[in-house]
Amino acid sequence: MLDRKDQHLDIVLDGRTARYRQAETGFEAIAFEHCALPELDFDEIDLATPFLGRTLQAPFLISSMTGGPQRAAAINRHLAEAAEALGLALAVGSQRVALSGSGDGGVTRELRRLAPTIPLLANLGGAQIVAEYGLDEARRAVEMIDANALIIHLNPLQEILQPEGDRRWRGALAAIERLVTALDVPIVVKEVGCGLSAPVARRLSEAGVGILDVAGAGGTSWAAIEGERAETEHQRRVAAVFSDWGIPTAMAIRAVREAVPGAVVIGSGGVRTGLDAAKAIALGADLVGQAAAVLDGAVASTEAVMAHFRIMEDQLRAACFCTASPNPAALRQARLLVC
Amino acid sequence: MLDRKDQHLDIVLDGRTARYRQAETGFEAIAFEHCALPELDFDEIDLATPFLGRTLQAPFLISSMTGGPQRAAAINRHLAEAAEALGLALAVGSQRVALSGSGDGGVTRELRRLAPTIPLLANLGGAQIVAEYGLDEARRAVEMIDANALIIHLNPLQEILQPEGDRRWRGALAAIERLVTALDVPIVVKEVGCGLSAPVARRLSEAGVGILDVAGAGGTSWAAIEGERAETEHQRRVAAVFSDWGIPTAMAIRAVREAVPGAVVIGSGGVRTGLDAAKAIALGADLVGQAAAVLDGAVASTEAVMAHFRIMEDQLRAACFCTASPNPAALRQARLLVC
Amino acid sequence: MLDRKDQHLDIVLDGRTARYRQAETGFEAIAFEHCALPELDFDEIDLATPFLGRTLQAPFLISSMTGGPQRAAAINRHLAEAAEALGLALAVGSQRVALSGSGDGGVTRELRRLAPTIPLLANLGGAQIVAEYGLDEARRAVEMIDANALIIHLNPLQEILQPEGDRRWRGALAAIERLVTALDVPIVVKEVGCGLSAPVARRLSEAGVGILDVAGAGGTSWAAIEGERAETEHQRRVAAVFSDWGIPTAMAIRAVREAVPGAVVIGSGGVRTGLDAAKAIALGADLVGQAAAVLDGAVASTEAVMAHFRIMEDQLRAACFCTASPNPAALRQARLLVC
Amino acid sequence: MLDRKDQHLDIVLDGRTARYRQAETGFEAIAFEHCALPELDFDEIDLATPFLGRTLQAPFLISSMTGGPQRAAAINRHLAEAAEALGLALAVGSQRVALSGSGDGGVTRELRRLAPTIPLLANLGGAQIVAEYGLDEARRAVEMIDANALIIHLNPLQEILQPEGDRRWRGALAAIERLVTALDVPIVVKEVGCGLSAPVARRLSEAGVGILDVAGAGGTSWAAIEGERAETEHQRRVAAVFSDWGIPTAMAIRAVREAVPGAVVIGSGGVRTGLDAAKAIALGADLVGQAAAVLDGAVASTEAVMAHFRIMEDQLRAACFCTASPNPAALRQARLLVC
Ligand SMILES: Cc1cc2nc3c(=O)[nH]c(=O)nc-3n(C[C@H](O)[C@H](O)[C@H](O)COP(=O)(O)O)c2cc1C
Ligand SMILES: Cc1cc2nc3c(=O)[nH]c(=O)nc-3n(C[C@H](O)[C@H](O)[C@H](O)COP(=O)(O)O)c2cc1C
Ligand SMILES: Cc1cc2nc3c(=O)[nH]c(=O)nc-3n(C[C@H](O)[C@H](O)[C@H](O)COP(=O)(O)O)c2cc1C
Ligand SMILES: Cc1cc2nc3c(=O)[nH]c(=O)nc-3n(C[C@H](O)[C@H](O)[C@H](O)COP(=O)(O)O)c2cc1C
Repeated sequence: MLDRKDQHLDIVLDGRTARYRQAETGFEAIAFEHCALPELDFDEIDLATPFLGRTLQAPFLISSMTGGPQRAAAINRHLAEAAEALGLALAVGSQRVALSGSGDGGVTRELRRLAPTIPLLANLGGAQIVAEYGLDEARRAVEMIDANALIIHLNPLQEILQPEGDRRWRGALAAIERLVTALDVPIVVKEVGCGLSAPVARRLSEAGVGILDVAGAGGTSWAAIEGERAETEHQRRVAAVFSDWGIPTAMAIRAVREAVPGAVVIGSGGVRTGLDAAKAIALGADLVGQAAAVLDGAVASTEAVMAHFRIMEDQLRAACFCTASPNPAALRQARLLVC
Repeated sequence: MLDRKDQHLDIVLDGRTARYRQAETGFEAIAFEHCALPELDFDEIDLATPFLGRTLQAPFLISSMTGGPQRAAAINRHLAEAAEALGLALAVGSQRVALSGSGDGGVTRELRRLAPTIPLLANLGGAQIVAEYGLDEARRAVEMIDANALIIHLNPLQEILQPEGDRRWRGALAAIERLVTALDVPIVVKEVGCGLSAPVARRLSEAGVGILDVAGAGGTSWAAIEGERAETEHQRRVAAVFSDWGIPTAMAIRAVREAVPGAVVIGSGGVRTGLDAAKAIALGADLVGQAAAVLDGAVASTEAVMAHFRIMEDQLRAACFCTASPNPAALRQARLLVC
Repeated sequence: MLDRKDQHLDIVLDGRTARYRQAETGFEAIAFEHCALPELDFDEIDLATPFLGRTLQAPFLISSMTGGPQRAAAINRHLAEAAEALGLALAVGSQRVALSGSGDGGVTRELRRLAPTIPLLANLGGAQIVAEYGLDEARRAVEMIDANALIIHLNPLQEILQPEGDRRWRGALAAIERLVTALDVPIVVKEVGCGLSAPVARRLSEAGVGILDVAGAGGTSWAAIEGERAETEHQRRVAAVFSDWGIPTAMAIRAVREAVPGAVVIGSGGVRTGLDAAKAIALGADLVGQAAAVLDGAVASTEAVMAHFRIMEDQLRAACFCTASPNPAALRQARLLVC
Repeated sequence: MLDRKDQHLDIVLDGRTARYRQAETGFEAIAFEHCALPELDFDEIDLATPFLGRTLQAPFLISSMTGGPQRAAAINRHLAEAAEALGLALAVGSQRVALSGSGDGGVTRELRRLAPTIPLLANLGGAQIVAEYGLDEARRAVEMIDANALIIHLNPLQEILQPEGDRRWRGALAAIERLVTALDVPIVVKEVGCGLSAPVARRLSEAGVGILDVAGAGGTSWAAIEGERAETEHQRRVAAVFSDWGIPTAMAIRAVREAVPGAVVIGSGGVRTGLDAAKAIALGADLVGQAAAVLDGAVASTEAVMAHFRIMEDQLRAACFCTASPNPAALRQARLLVC
């Protein structure tokens, strides 16, 4: 499993999957109506956003990423220091390795020490909570990093395209419902690049899940990554066909927001710029997550991660300003043009 | 005629016609709504599909192909062994040569010996049943391979673009109707790459034909092939203009399904992957046919054909899984996104 | 003026204007619904079409072309011999040069001798009948070739882009109306590549014109040609901007047919194949004209022109056959797919 | 500030920003319905257009441009001489430098001496009238060139993307309203390449502004220019994302015209040809402005500017003629085709 995670990282980092991607996020097809008279001072724009009982300095979440043992510790340190410095939320990658005891993948209490004031999110796979794990493991995952919430990621396509993947998904909703009732922290449910649909969002909401991360199509494609890693022609060709499978992120955000108006919605999947983030928020997201776009910086240094998010912030601020929005929430009222 | 068949094979095999094709199947314009919570175990997915009183292990038909005498026997053997091993349906190519007595084109009782348990389909041309053949020849075609059904292929465009083609098509419907009444096995009517339309499907259904294979545009183009083979500039230019003539497969499936809700509909024409197959089924097909996509394998070996269909099956299963469909028939309820 | 005509020919012949053309005829955006069961014998298809009291063997008109003095005679001879052999209609180019007495441009009684049985059409410019010519010249133009009709071409854009062009167009409609009343042969009114619109067609019909040739955009572009010939940067840049000005031929045919249901409509402008011709007819044309597509052949030989139209005929027949249309008129009922 | 202006000029002149531009004006998506029977003499077409109590010989405004001190004087001289010779309106670039006393940027009474009969427009930035300037400076700007109107340009995006830019825009509308009441000349409000929206136009109209210049997206992009000039990677990436931000010019003209039917609307932003100008007028503009398209000529000579506008005029005349419009205002009735 550790080797697999290492391969995943390498494939995303050297951009090999770009060749396979055709899916678009849908952000490219919408534009904001410009407001030439914002009646606003730029420095008034306030990106502060409440999340999990804390206040983020900007509506950004560093989405879950796992890596192999060598690099994960450094990556997680860079991310935690940057998130703490900028007041952003941070989700760790899957804690399966850590729980299995075969290494900690850099996911330890040290993270909370580096990032004492921000929301930290633990992470487990939907397939694992069906098959292997109960309440105990979920509690251990949360405690391991003193997390403010536990993310359950739903990745059915990725699992069945991996030769070693989990193929049993019956019972996932019931398992999630049990965690919602029994755990002390909120549950977040997310996809990993194929998007949550309106019917799925509705079922999760009825099961008590209040925070949904759409993780739609147009960004990281696990089908493309598994196609890259494939050892047989059979695996490669089965996976390749699904490289643009999924609900485009823009469409998923709008559908989930409409389906569950009261939920906290995280818009993610292919978010590359602060302007994409502004569009995600206008379409219904409360905050915006990024994984692949942060990875280069995360491998490099804490400063690189900070530089990335400072650009994101200024782009988001500029979009707020030119739509006369004093804060991200006001973007929901901004007028959109369809290109 | 044998030479002509050999030329056809070569042109399809070396992909020369690709240069002429602009038509699309229409599959590229639709996508499935992903379901992140399938509540299904992958191994439960059941591709078994009833057809002609037998049960296929997957909803796949190897569509009719004919070849010249040297290669046809080997091709048919590979296809029959693979179809038997995987439980798929197999249609033979036109039996005109065999009926005329100038060779058997590999279409003999040997096929049924190699493939004792699967549906085998005999094949005659619509123009032949109008002009040359009566009930007798149709019975001989069926008996020749102990077929479970007789396919009549309608290829008016192909015939008129061939210098040697049959140009008399008046009376085809009446001839089909006579066969429906007199033959012991069901009649299947198909096109060869230009698609069946709703009005044609309705007329065939009224004539008693219960199984329709759309064979739409976007895959093999006989106009392109005849353009390639042309010996005069006149023939070449007449044919070339029709290389993308026809009803795109996705459109034809939907139209035929709506026009004759009770028919067995075979979706074919440019199906390249198991994801295309899933879309064909979602649009209304009961099973899915492929010719050109199988040809490379068919020339090579039984194993190559099997490898091809194993990939098709796994792609179809993955599409079922990620739309929460326990079987192909359930795909009809899956939600589609228009791109 | 003769030099100008020579330049026009050269520019069309060496395809230089292709670089400037972006306009499309609109034919590329429509397709026929294929009919797999035509219930028709190909050889029954009858292309015969009445026109100007005679019967054409196919619904084709060779549209007006003029050339400089050296080449015009040969070109016209090739066209006349081919039109006579195949039973097509032939329009001569503008007879302005011939009327002015400075040469006959190959437009003489000799033409009628070469083509005794087909409809021959005389040709004058709309600007000329406003400014220079009266009934007398119109009669002389008709008599010069013993024509069955007189075409008036409306080319306002071309005229104003030519430094030497006619800029006075007030009174054109009244002048046309006078000709309609006074001449013994019918009047045809056409554009030269920018298309007739519905309001113009209605006004012409009210003035008594019964035959309209749309000559729409997507084929020969006089703005592009005048841009090529321009001697100053000013002329070149003024003309270039209009190289795709005009109503696309498919749109013009439909609009004119709707506006004047009782008129004889000629569809022309960028018709390249017999399939384009079939689409023009399905959209409402009674016959189809071509200029540029015939020019290469016309320069070469009578046989080359005949070869071109034999291909056109067979393409048109194939389109009729695969839409179950026993004749071109029946194409009006064929079902169209919008791409 | 002077250096910055010099950089702006250089970047526009050497076309570096073209690489970044993806936005389109929207003009490319519309076409005029051609009128083959204009019933008009070309030489009757009258481009004369009233503006600010004077009569322009054509509905063209040379939009505001500023340059660094060395070149601005020559540029402004060429523009003033050409505008006077052709009877066009001329707007000077921002007078901030001149008001600050650190040079006059070629914006002096000399301009009025060179262009005694045409409308001259003064120019100040919206951010300046909020922050630094009052009625006094506005009066001085007008007097400096004996202007017939004062333009206030709204450039919120440009300002916040400049490190040295003004970020305070609260109060801009009130400041504009004060100027409207107190100044002796009319106020024009414009954008600089992102477009005025319907709501902004309505608010300006309520504040008493009677002349609106949309300056929409599709032409000069200040975000692209600021991205070029950026000294840090942070600035470059923040700016680059906004290079196609804004309301396409065609859309902005239509929206503003509908929102304030009684206003004088200037259509600008990416106007390149007289045909673009005709489309702008058909969509609702009273006159049409150009900046970047004039710049090359403006640097070169008075004659080059005149040659440019003579081409613009003839292109506009040709569009009028082929739509049977005796003057630009009649273009409003011309029928448009959507491509
Ligand atoms: C290298 C890498 C590792 C990832 N590992 C996890 C993981 O362990 N758990 C999880 O929930 N998502 C994981 N993801 C998915 C992301 O959290 C995110 O949902 C998805 O990549 C879409 O966002 P993006 O397009 O910004 O990358 C991973 C993504 C990447 C690129
Ligand atoms: C080499 C070749 C030979 C074919 N011969 C026949 C035939 O004899 N009878 C028939 O009904 N269809 C014949 N077809 C048509 C196919 O059965 C099928 O309807 C058509 O090719 C569309 O499917 P495809 O795009 O998957 O190739 C042939 C196709 C190919 C490629
Ligand atoms: C070389 C050339 C000369 C032409 N001369 C005339 C002419 O004298 N009179 C006329 O009515 N149209 C003339 N036309 C226009 C054609 O008749 C026709 O309306 C137009 O070219 C559109 O058809 P196409 O796209 O098939 O060329 C000429 C066209 C060409 C290519
Ligand atoms: C070099 C340059 C300098 C400009 N300076 C000013 C200025 O000082 N004041 C102003 O209102 N607009 C200024 N503009 C904006 C133009 O007036 C115009 O609104 C905008 O460029 C859109 O028109 P275009 O696409 O034709 O260039 C400038 C434009 C350019 C290209």
